[in-house]
Amino acid sequence: MSSSDTIYGLHAVRVMLERHAARVLTVHLAAGRDDPRARAIEELARRHDRPLRRLDSQALRKLVGDVAHQGVAADITPLPPWSEDDLLTALQAAPTPVLLALDGVQDPHNLGACLRTADACAALAVIVPRDRAAQLTPTVRKVAVGAAETTPVVAVTNLVRTLKILKEAGLWVVGADAAAEKAAHGIDLKGPVVLVLGAEGTGLRQLTRQTCDFMVRLPQLGAVESLNVSVAAGMLLYEALRQRGRA
Amino acid sequence: MSSSDTIYGLHAVRVMLERHAARVLTVHLAAGRDDPRARAIEELARRHDRPLRRLDSQALRKLVGDVAHQGVAADITPLPPWSEDDLLTALQAAPTPVLLALDGVQDPHNLGACLRTADACAALAVIVPRDRAAQLTPTVRKVAVGAAETTPVVAVTNLVRTLKILKEAGLWVVGADAAAEKAAHGIDLKGPVVLVLGAEGTGLRQLTRQTCDFMVRLPQLGAVESLNVSVAAGMLLYEALRQRGRA
Repeated sequence: MSSSDTIYGLHAVRVMLERHAARVLTVHLAAGRDDPRARAIEELARRHDRPLRRLDSQALRKLVGDVAHQGVAADITPLPPWSEDDLLTALQAAPTPVLLALDGVQDPHNLGACLRTADACAALAVIVPRDRAAQLTPTVRKVAVGAAETTPVVAVTNLVRTLKILKEAGLWVVGADAAAEKAAHGIDLKGPVVLVLGAEGTGLRQLTRQTCDFMVRLPQLGAVESLNVSVAAGMLLYEALRQRGRA
Repeated sequence: MSSSDTIYGLHAVRVMLERHAARVLTVHLAAGRDDPRARAIEELARRHDRPLRRLDSQALRKLVGDVAHQGVAADITPLPPWSEDDLLTALQAAPTPVLLALDGVQDPHNLGACLRTADACAALAVIVPRDRAAQLTPTVRKVAVGAAETTPVVAVTNLVRTLKILKEAGLWVVGADAAAEKAAHGIDLKGPVVLVLGAEGTGLRQLTRQTCDFMVRLPQLGAVESLNVSVAAGMLLYEALRQRGRA
């Protein structure tokens, strides 16, 4: 992990200044921008005493690459992976958390896409096994387009053991499986939950499955064997938010 | 488009034999396989009078590449893109269809992922503009892992005109927008609907937006500006299925 990372886009930079100002090292704003949304960024940087630098569009493109940066970027201290203890501490402050756990997702693009989806759905963290699974690499951070800077990844030695600890902490463990009898909307997802998804093709491992309190089905009405894992995560997280009136 | 395409996996080959047997040119089955699911494929091939070839695992891997083929593949006639007329004909036989329309999605991976999601959610077709948007290329077919062979792509000259024609045909046009007031579950999606999604970052074009009967919001609770378009499609299609009792 590098000692600083660069995020871009009005929304991502604004959220970072609002929620994690201490992690913002420098704000970069395009020389030409002087509109309400850019001024809001300037005001936030001033209020939190963060350095702001004006730079021309060429320098900005050099900094972030050829992306839709909207004239704003920020160097930030990257969010380090969480330990299991960090997660348990965070749970104490979260009354009805939603967690996402990925059982053996090996493709870094899929992990990045899941992080992005988890972020949009306000999941507290994404849990991944430390072995035989994608970890938080620069590729993952890139695919997650900033989500890796706000949604923590928890790498655990033994996923089943962690799920059991979470059960003891009062969370319900809900696994997704194409062959499950119950639909996701047939299960109460309003309480504290861990949503567990397996890798495409193989699904949840036997031991993981046995640790789940409920198994739920996701749509599989076509020719394709399984949904992409980030799409499946999106459906389950959407359903949890819908039930909570937050969708 | 090549004159034949190869699909793989027990589910994909079974669905193709069950629903579109006339398009199956040859079924390939791994020499070793003799279990209930493989025998069901054999039986379907026999019933529909489709040639079946046994081949060793090396030959199978050579045919489909290093993928989870489960010992079965099939050469099929690719599904050609649909014209607007094909779509209107298909609509007459579909009482409450769900269509997906993509407004300016340029990334072929995103189109492929949307096709895969649309297939899993039994969308009748996916509509894309002919210009400045991803078309049905080999890359798209590959990312769609077989979905492009069952879920048709309709390339249209003018998306807004097509949406208006669909409105006249009795469909409701529902667009997704992060800033919309209504949540997706606040809108009745049980009738015939077209779900319209824009490209990441830019969203729906102004004219497309004006053509929509309703705009609905999807979760945007985090630092990321927008959901991946295939994840957004998954949430909206899931919601439509949930309301129909098919999720």
